[in-house]
Amino acid sequence: MIETPYLLFLGDAPDQLAAKVAQGIKDWRPENAIGQYRMTGCGADVGLTDMTLAEARDAGAKTLVIGVANRGGMISQAWKDVLIEALEMGYDLASGLHNLLRDERDLSSCAQMHGGTLHDVRVPTDAYPIANGKKRSGKRVLAVGTDCSVGKMYTALALDEAMRRKGMKSTFRATGQTGILITGHGVPLDAVIADFMAGAVEYLTPDNDADHWDIIEGQGSLYHVSYSGVTMALIHGGQPDALILCHEPTRKTMRGLPDYTLPSLEQVRDMALPLARIANPACQVIAISINTQHMSDAEADAYLAEVETRLGLPAVDPFRHGAEKLADALHAMT
Amino acid sequence: MIETPYLLFLGDAPDQLAAKVAQGIKDWRPENAIGQYRMTGCGADVGLTDMTLAEARDAGAKTLVIGVANRGGMISQAWKDVLIEALEMGYDLASGLHNLLRDERDLSSCAQMHGGTLHDVRVPTDAYPIANGKKRSGKRVLAVGTDCSVGKMYTALALDEAMRRKGMKSTFRATGQTGILITGHGVPLDAVIADFMAGAVEYLTPDNDADHWDIIEGQGSLYHVSYSGVTMALIHGGQPDALILCHEPTRKTMRGLPDYTLPSLEQVRDMALPLARIANPACQVIAISINTQHMSDAEADAYLAEVETRLGLPAVDPFRHGAEKLADALHAMT
Repeated sequence: MIETPYLLFLGDAPDQLAAKVAQGIKDWRPENAIGQYRMTGCGADVGLTDMTLAEARDAGAKTLVIGVANRGGMISQAWKDVLIEALEMGYDLASGLHNLLRDERDLSSCAQMHGGTLHDVRVPTDAYPIANGKKRSGKRVLAVGTDCSVGKMYTALALDEAMRRKGMKSTFRATGQTGILITGHGVPLDAVIADFMAGAVEYLTPDNDADHWDIIEGQGSLYHVSYSGVTMALIHGGQPDALILCHEPTRKTMRGLPDYTLPSLEQVRDMALPLARIANPACQVIAISINTQHMSDAEADAYLAEVETRLGLPAVDPFRHGAEKLADALHAMT
Repeated sequence: MIETPYLLFLGDAPDQLAAKVAQGIKDWRPENAIGQYRMTGCGADVGLTDMTLAEARDAGAKTLVIGVANRGGMISQAWKDVLIEALEMGYDLASGLHNLLRDERDLSSCAQMHGGTLHDVRVPTDAYPIANGKKRSGKRVLAVGTDCSVGKMYTALALDEAMRRKGMKSTFRATGQTGILITGHGVPLDAVIADFMAGAVEYLTPDNDADHWDIIEGQGSLYHVSYSGVTMALIHGGQPDALILCHEPTRKTMRGLPDYTLPSLEQVRDMALPLARIANPACQVIAISINTQHMSDAEADAYLAEVETRLGLPAVDPFRHGAEKLADALHAMT
């Protein structure tokens, strides 16, 4: 749907986390990302070659993908000059932000004039039903986190990759704009109307073969007061058979909520599991995924060993060490 | 905003619960409801005089209010003849359903031709922020239920009335179409985009006097897999100081979910309170509200006494016995 390869637009991202869309594309579909475009003062770097619009176009880039999200998910006025220049040079634009490229008059008229396409992957494309809670065939695993941006999508993508390598049947189910930009389909859950959230998750993870796993991308956290309703809809709409707890141990306060400290893995387990069992009484917490990006190898190893002992579950950083342990835990359930 | 008095349209409501919008208006603003309009096969009756469109118009009715909700909240084709005739006779229409009067071509063209107004109270009227979780001044109480349609709105409206009678400062905060139709303002929470749900609740219940109570209308249930995400957003966005548990003891299965049995009051207490304490560590469960409409006086009294003993909290049916006990419990906290 979206023409590749991309030039990833990092804009004026204040920090690395703000560029997680671009980072996700670079990590999971590096063949689609030809370079990165950074504005003055940009605090993010996803490790691709910095390119101008002209350089990237000459290297074959078709689409400028907005790989940065500021708080509230709005298109910044500061980006407009670059976006308009890109359209004038023949790029398409793709974005997962809340306000839409197509609703910006300057962008939509410029796109029309130059024949460019505006892809707003956040816009729900289907009329989702109200959830009916009926048990579906096939199996589902959901990543739930202590916070937003702790590695739930990475965990799901790495798990999907590991399961396919083992010959298991699995499908990554994207529920956010990055996942959708990476895989080309999914449900932009945070843009769905409240009443239809759980139904959208049911729709995304339909009946399947008994030994097929849907790997559902998590969103938010039960402990993140801004987005916990979205997490709740995933837990009930997804009726997961398995939960994987995700955590970033060096994070002190909840993302965007400086007054809130992170819960422990035990707290998330004890909150999420009884809620999940409302929809699927057989649900189990089967593994822990730790984002150790801010730890040394030795620190990461020690922390993972400690977590395994403390919670009695396999613990791994799927980005650092691969997701085989997680895939093994699911394989044992099939 | 909406011209009164109303004629309440019950349409082809399959049962009494499907007419809860009309029932709510009749119970809480009877002076606004001049009569009811029922189609052949209607299984609901809110106890008003049955009137034709002409009779009600002659009696002064200005607006035909759609007081019935079918599953999914859609405008039924079967209602169209009546709605169009009403517009032709000079009525305005008001609706809280998911699909909008204004989006029905036959209704919007007919309204335009005859000068009628189409009020869609479900449409969010403001751009809500993302929740920031900051502690707000003033106090808030939220009704949480074992299921949908167990009396959360009634509890909140009765509590508001009782508190005002006691001279306490209180405001009923509507979060659903009935509440909005009754009070003329509020947030249609189930129509809000997922990411902004909790922020909409924060917006609805802003800073206030230290001794002022917002009485927040509850929605759904943490145990209702179709709508639990909305409930979650109320618990975190509302940052309640007090929770009132609502229950209908004769209900066997969850509304619309025949495979799901109702949780106990203890289960709801034990699930809702730790979640509420994430946003407000001081939150307490302070009382129980029981919908005893399907019980005799003796049965209701015995059940309430048993619940008071079992949970160690005041228990009352606010519709049957008034909400003084609930107001007293809040007064003790101020």
